[in-house]
Amino acid sequence: MSYTALVEHFEQLHHLQHLGAICGWDQATMMPPGGNEARAEALGTLAVLCHRQLQEAQLPDWFAAAEAGPLTPEQAVSLHEMRRAWRDANMLPADLVRARSLAGSRCEHAWRSLRPANDWAGFLPLFEEVLNLSRQAASARAEALGLSRYDSLLEQYEPGMRSRQLDQLFGNLGGWLPDLIRQVQERQRHERVLAPSGPFPTTQQKALGLEVMALLGFDFAHGRLDVSAHPFCGGVGEDVRLTTRYDEQDVTQALMGIIHETGHARYEQGLPAAWRKLPAGQARSMGVHESQSLFFEMQLARHPAFLARLAPMLERHFGPQPAFVPDNLARLYTRVEPGFIRVDADEVTYPAHVMLRFEIERDLIEGRMEARDLPERWDQLMQQYLGLSTKGNHKDGCLQDIHWTDGSFGYFPSYTLGAIYAAQQAAAMQQQLGPLDRLIGEDLPAIFGWLQQHIWQHASLLETGVLLSRATGQALDPAPFRLHLEQRYLA
Amino acid sequence: MSYTALVEHFEQLHHLQHLGAICGWDQATMMPPGGNEARAEALGTLAVLCHRQLQEAQLPDWFAAAEAGPLTPEQAVSLHEMRRAWRDANMLPADLVRARSLAGSRCEHAWRSLRPANDWAGFLPLFEEVLNLSRQAASARAEALGLSRYDSLLEQYEPGMRSRQLDQLFGNLGGWLPDLIRQVQERQRHERVLAPSGPFPTTQQKALGLEVMALLGFDFAHGRLDVSAHPFCGGVGEDVRLTTRYDEQDVTQALMGIIHETGHARYEQGLPAAWRKLPAGQARSMGVHESQSLFFEMQLARHPAFLARLAPMLERHFGPQPAFVPDNLARLYTRVEPGFIRVDADEVTYPAHVMLRFEIERDLIEGRMEARDLPERWDQLMQQYLGLSTKGNHKDGCLQDIHWTDGSFGYFPSYTLGAIYAAQQAAAMQQQLGPLDRLIGEDLPAIFGWLQQHIWQHASLLETGVLLSRATGQALDPAPFRLHLEQRYLA
Repeated sequence: MSYTALVEHFEQLHHLQHLGAICGWDQATMMPPGGNEARAEALGTLAVLCHRQLQEAQLPDWFAAAEAGPLTPEQAVSLHEMRRAWRDANMLPADLVRARSLAGSRCEHAWRSLRPANDWAGFLPLFEEVLNLSRQAASARAEALGLSRYDSLLEQYEPGMRSRQLDQLFGNLGGWLPDLIRQVQERQRHERVLAPSGPFPTTQQKALGLEVMALLGFDFAHGRLDVSAHPFCGGVGEDVRLTTRYDEQDVTQALMGIIHETGHARYEQGLPAAWRKLPAGQARSMGVHESQSLFFEMQLARHPAFLARLAPMLERHFGPQPAFVPDNLARLYTRVEPGFIRVDADEVTYPAHVMLRFEIERDLIEGRMEARDLPERWDQLMQQYLGLSTKGNHKDGCLQDIHWTDGSFGYFPSYTLGAIYAAQQAAAMQQQLGPLDRLIGEDLPAIFGWLQQHIWQHASLLETGVLLSRATGQALDPAPFRLHLEQRYLA
Repeated sequence: MSYTALVEHFEQLHHLQHLGAICGWDQATMMPPGGNEARAEALGTLAVLCHRQLQEAQLPDWFAAAEAGPLTPEQAVSLHEMRRAWRDANMLPADLVRARSLAGSRCEHAWRSLRPANDWAGFLPLFEEVLNLSRQAASARAEALGLSRYDSLLEQYEPGMRSRQLDQLFGNLGGWLPDLIRQVQERQRHERVLAPSGPFPTTQQKALGLEVMALLGFDFAHGRLDVSAHPFCGGVGEDVRLTTRYDEQDVTQALMGIIHETGHARYEQGLPAAWRKLPAGQARSMGVHESQSLFFEMQLARHPAFLARLAPMLERHFGPQPAFVPDNLARLYTRVEPGFIRVDADEVTYPAHVMLRFEIERDLIEGRMEARDLPERWDQLMQQYLGLSTKGNHKDGCLQDIHWTDGSFGYFPSYTLGAIYAAQQAAAMQQQLGPLDRLIGEDLPAIFGWLQQHIWQHASLLETGVLLSRATGQALDPAPFRLHLEQRYLA
């Protein structure tokens, strides 16, 4: 009875979140500029309502009564996930929530002009305020959860993950990645890569994108593709809204972006319908979500066997040119080049950008480092991992990301966890189904079936560690990722 | 203080309605089919929340306290409109609301297949249930408002309007309209009208539509144009979403549809920003809304001076053809032909369709007629007003409209009130600014300025009667409408 009341209550929350997801998508894709202020206000009211739904006074009683009653094992997990959502929404005092939100908006807003101006001095006091309040939030969460401060933030994005594991993981990566990057660079130094020559009209890029989405099993009865300044995968499981951004001079980026978002989308579309409206039916974590987009983009789409399928599609839409030859596409899509900017990084150097951020954000939150020391530490780690200096170049250094401006500390590791989970999944899949090149060439549905069976259908019904080891036979392990990089880039 | 609390409360309601308007628009324009069930549920939850917002227990106390406090005259009106919204949401017992909504959904759903099957016998029991519950609702509303049963329903769409006035109005129209229709038909009998010859590709129709919207002053920073099966003007004042439907064989319909919706849109865009989030800042009534769309479509766009401006635009988009000559466009867009279907009716015969429905729905609600007698009465009135029989032809007769299937009795008069208000406005405008053909040819902004000053900026701050007589110097009066028809169709 109490469990039923909880289901109804959380379904209501889900419906509100649905409206927010669609209106958020509209804001990024369809809304004319003059609609923004009213939209922001409407979404603000909705956020308050959603939060209030999780602060309903009867919830603790319902939780207690439901726990005492008979529950199926899945209902017990569902209850646990409801509690997690409730706990996250009620852990911080209301005035700290408000202060963080305010300081975050202020810092993020200023950052949009301070970054292009390379203005670290202007950014610092705003950032110090955000950091200060994030530390307070981390302390409150840490106390409630019995975790370290940084781990209590990590828990928001990657439940169950601890910095102890991340230390090991990044320690391991740090031991071989810088050297691997150098080897790959050495090897690619004399490689000849042709860039496709445009223009590539937007309408044709979109037609190609839709065709590739169909090939990747995207369900167009439950989703669509549009354009936004910052590509994302939004909407709801029943109606997934992907976006991309087209550059008429370059077809390669939007195409790979669409494939990346299609990975996110298929996870959402593949979540179990029976649990869709409850916390237990949502995607497991940011890392698992990223593992699906990176599986699609890195394991699948940059694989030579997939590029061999892409080549004739590119030719069909844009006419033949030497750059579309499969071998050239493979070289193009596996080019490694250390650079300043994380979001432009290739598969091999990307983890270095994340390691650097993890070390810094952990030390900032744990109080082992101060905001004012950020540029120097950034420069030092960039030199260590990628051989590049950002001294004085804040806009391409510590000012490049939006995450910290609003206090989203603890998010960055998800990117690399995703890459590693994806490599583990690819390795296990190949052990069970045979080599990827055959699957990609002849049996893509088998790949999607494997992901459906081992990842998508479990939603949040399994903890990440259990999900991963049942799917791959291993706990978190960077070895398959390393092997993947060595085979693709050094073999 | 209480007034401030009320403002905040009603602003919150406005924000929720904003989310509903955008998600409703998305449902009709963008949503893939598989998203419908989840969307319907989410919007259902939102409707409950909006209703609950108007049932907040503190509202009566706040109203009383606010009335006692010092208020500006505009705040007093604003308070009155808040009360009206509150009153409408609280007048019916909850189980009657639920029963009506259920019976309405059932009847409307069945109607979608019963109408094409011409199945009156299948429709009747469902309709009887809807009518029965609508009569109960009308009785409850009538008692609370001190109005007749039908007037209490009318009050929902056209506050202040009474059936006594409508009797007079339609009595007047009934006295001359059938004869005028016959005269126009006689006169047009030998007129030669060329239909434009297609195809007219959708992309070009859209480009033309956008150009015409711009000419009509639509603000694209606060709105957009899309496609839906049933054209509408939705969204919110800050972000108005128009839709149309294109037929590649016919450019005339979508174009005039866009112009009609642009009239609705400019009213919404022209509502006063300071009152936008409160009931007093909304459009005055359905009739006034329709007066703006019909001003744009009938008074303005079908005027020979406007068609003379449209002709070169049509030529520019589709190449010259004899049908695009202004004189032919004028004949095409003023063709009068009695027909069965209201939504396809021309400006002259349209009021006959409304008169018929008004008489029937008033008698149904007042208990002077039963549901089973509908087909016979329909046929008799169609013969009387338009000389057409619908005997046995239910799908083109009493089954053609959606309105009654869900119990929206009292809505139909708005269409003809709109046409009459529009004619009054056009007459007054010409008295003040000079003849329409000069204004249309040389000074469209003066027309829009007049509407802004006399209609749009007043939102719901004036009652309809006051709004109308301040703008036109007259109370509701069919004479300018009659004169308009005589001048356009018989002169």
